[in-house]
Amino acid sequence: MNTSTYETLVSTWTRMHHFAHLQSIAGWDQAANMPPKGNEARAAALAEMAALLHRMRTDAQLPDQLARAEQEPLSDLQRANLREMWRQWRASNALPERLVQRQQLANSRCEHAWRTQRPANDWAGFLINFRPVLALAREEAALLSQDQGLSKYDAMMERFEPGMRCVQVDRVFGEVRQWLPGLIRQVTERQSREHVVTPKGPFALASQKQVCEQVMRLLGFDFEAGRLDVSTHPFCGGVPEDVRMTTRFRDDDFLGSLMGTVHETGHGRYEQNLPRDLLGQPVAEARSMALHESQSLSFEMQLGCHPGFAAQLAPLLEQAFGAQPALEPANLHRLMTRVKPGFIRVDADEVTYPAHVILRYEIERLLIEGEIEPEDVPALWDAKMMELLGVDTRGNYTNGPLQDVHWPEALFGYFPCYSLGAMYAAQWFATMRRAMPDLDARIARGELGAVFEWLRQNIWSQGSRWTTDELALHASGEVLNPAHFKAHLEARYLS
Amino acid sequence: MNTSTYETLVSTWTRMHHFAHLQSIAGWDQAANMPPKGNEARAAALAEMAALLHRMRTDAQLPDQLARAEQEPLSDLQRANLREMWRQWRASNALPERLVQRQQLANSRCEHAWRTQRPANDWAGFLINFRPVLALAREEAALLSQDQGLSKYDAMMERFEPGMRCVQVDRVFGEVRQWLPGLIRQVTERQSREHVVTPKGPFALASQKQVCEQVMRLLGFDFEAGRLDVSTHPFCGGVPEDVRMTTRFRDDDFLGSLMGTVHETGHGRYEQNLPRDLLGQPVAEARSMALHESQSLSFEMQLGCHPGFAAQLAPLLEQAFGAQPALEPANLHRLMTRVKPGFIRVDADEVTYPAHVILRYEIERLLIEGEIEPEDVPALWDAKMMELLGVDTRGNYTNGPLQDVHWPEALFGYFPCYSLGAMYAAQWFATMRRAMPDLDARIARGELGAVFEWLRQNIWSQGSRWTTDELALHASGEVLNPAHFKAHLEARYLS
Repeated sequence: MNTSTYETLVSTWTRMHHFAHLQSIAGWDQAANMPPKGNEARAAALAEMAALLHRMRTDAQLPDQLARAEQEPLSDLQRANLREMWRQWRASNALPERLVQRQQLANSRCEHAWRTQRPANDWAGFLINFRPVLALAREEAALLSQDQGLSKYDAMMERFEPGMRCVQVDRVFGEVRQWLPGLIRQVTERQSREHVVTPKGPFALASQKQVCEQVMRLLGFDFEAGRLDVSTHPFCGGVPEDVRMTTRFRDDDFLGSLMGTVHETGHGRYEQNLPRDLLGQPVAEARSMALHESQSLSFEMQLGCHPGFAAQLAPLLEQAFGAQPALEPANLHRLMTRVKPGFIRVDADEVTYPAHVILRYEIERLLIEGEIEPEDVPALWDAKMMELLGVDTRGNYTNGPLQDVHWPEALFGYFPCYSLGAMYAAQWFATMRRAMPDLDARIARGELGAVFEWLRQNIWSQGSRWTTDELALHASGEVLNPAHFKAHLEARYLS
Repeated sequence: MNTSTYETLVSTWTRMHHFAHLQSIAGWDQAANMPPKGNEARAAALAEMAALLHRMRTDAQLPDQLARAEQEPLSDLQRANLREMWRQWRASNALPERLVQRQQLANSRCEHAWRTQRPANDWAGFLINFRPVLALAREEAALLSQDQGLSKYDAMMERFEPGMRCVQVDRVFGEVRQWLPGLIRQVTERQSREHVVTPKGPFALASQKQVCEQVMRLLGFDFEAGRLDVSTHPFCGGVPEDVRMTTRFRDDDFLGSLMGTVHETGHGRYEQNLPRDLLGQPVAEARSMALHESQSLSFEMQLGCHPGFAAQLAPLLEQAFGAQPALEPANLHRLMTRVKPGFIRVDADEVTYPAHVILRYEIERLLIEGEIEPEDVPALWDAKMMELLGVDTRGNYTNGPLQDVHWPEALFGYFPCYSLGAMYAAQWFATMRRAMPDLDARIARGELGAVFEWLRQNIWSQGSRWTTDELALHASGEVLNPAHFKAHLEARYLS
């Protein structure tokens, strides 16, 4: 029996999938379990695996095999898989192994020093390590840009959000810039007249974990194919067959870890419900980071901050922590939807959040395109924070440009995905509401099955079969339309 | 600068060490964390890694490189490393990849079915899967035997205990066979007159875990470089830089998991204290399985069951579970040293344990050498259990030949290591007592430092620098001498 070239490629990607599985579990373990003295050996082991996978992805035989497979009789799904194989090959092959290694070193050094420089407000110290990180990222951007015929920042964004271009982001974020400051003023003015009761702790960590797991079950997370553990920086890792979510607990506040868990559960269910029979192939991977965030934000913002969901949470919280006025449904919902301009992106509510993203997008794009240098960042940061949120950040690097891990790790092009994801999430729920006019009543009754079924059919089970635009079109009848996001905010916060 | 061939080999082994790190952590995770639906993907990922490592270990360039490195100017330590590289290469290269794959499949199928066949007492069902396991193991034994000029069973034992031969095992076990049944009779007769109070549970699992961790600290385990977790079958896994021990808890008994933890801590400290600057090289690996067991049994039997150690445990146990007569030092020591012939090897005390091992050694050797067939096992088992322990096992496969995972997994040649380890442990402590006549008083005062220092210098830090005989000679002035084991048992149980 002859093996087709396509089948040979499928085997190659299956092998890489197996190796990536070990990489992923060891990475999760590093964050969730590993004692400190294990770090050096683990870093060396993970770097070895990264090098092996890079070599496999840039194997000199691949372009020829991919081209020959294109001539074979394939189904549409197989062609989509081939398209994604090409995309992965192109992205890896554009970068010489030497650059990848230098980046790994520079980024890891910068990130490691950043952990102490951030609390020390040490911008000058940070710059020393950040300059080489940026220089290498610009080198990467130039190579990717040349290879793909894209602008430099577009080429960087392509790594996380294939098909998304600055021209579209500019249009979308430009619009948001118009109405956001006014909306924030209106909402905060309105909320200043509301009375909100603060929950009284301490909240036992074991009870918090129990509530988080109950809520994950409510949200359909499959504990036979995943776990919840604790790590300093919450994330959703592991593999689709075994999703490893993490959170962190503070005994004076339960809401942060609970809503964080709801957020990660959205990522987790996407992964758990990717097309099972194709796992290991690129076509079975999650489509993009904006779509991934559209799932976490569908869970956290659309569902989690829904007044009907607060009503379901309340009894669980009372059972875990005892009754108190702050835990009554209406107050709980007010707590979840409090809008307040602040310094920190990850603590921001869904109304002020886009301001944090727009600011970062505008700055990092200039950095990558060489229009500004790292020392120009603080002044720009201060000006934009004042303009967009009315917040004075001068001299506060800790809660200013040092707050995120993205720049030390050279994840340029990622930030826009958060807000694009919030917009997609609003678009999905607008679509569901058209099909199910009683959607809000269902959510209030705790009938979430229809929501999950819609997401499964339209997003999760589609993997990377379509481009993001095609997927949005199939799912909602239109490509990204930020009007739904504005409408969602107005409906929730102003009506 | 020219890289020597020796350095090239060192790099190759370092790469394999990095990959084996991921394999080891993922294996630990599979036992300690993994939810059930993750198993299929994990098994595939681990098999992929096993295949990669087998390919690396049998790389066609290796024999030539190893031969050239032998001509280079090397230190004694480097020559020892080269000797171990040769040994690993030879062991892997003797086996065609096809055989390794068939074994992996057959063993995994047999082990998987065994999990339900054992509780169902289903010997006939077990035979169906065990016959191919044995057939492939015989094929392996024939290939290894031919390659190494050893008898078939010697070649199998060489995988776990390099240098050990049946002729020596026969002599040692033959001696034990002479005095063991008499000793067991004497000890049980004597103990039948003692009064032992049974501890009253339940014992909260969280308190049990706390006690286990306290005792691990007492025993010098470095929690900055390792952890204790829970798994169905306790083991010591992970990597030397990050040792992952597991145990299991029952709320009606604390002693089983506690002594199991003491046992695994011996394995763990060996791994944590292997020569650090050579980690990744074969010369830095633990010498053999008998030496590994000599460490776990030094901890569990020599130290853990020492009356002085019981005196230190007692206050910890009272603090955790409240005072009760059973927890008083003298009673605790009686509980730990109870001798009772029984069905189950892993539950056996140190006096009856060798009987379980001798029986298995005698049977599996006949199986590997083709002198008997699987269907002959039960009758032999019954006869030997009656002869050695006076226990009737007829028809009881569950607690008879189905009780261990070793045969379903084709670990033929491993069993002798347990009792050889117990003998080495007695030999190490006899040596320490000669050098430190106050050793028992020190242990009773909780001064364990000198014991650990002796083990560190003589065993742990030596890695695989010497053959086992050389190591024993350096450490104790003689090669394996089972007289120390007999003297230890007589001193503890008859004096």
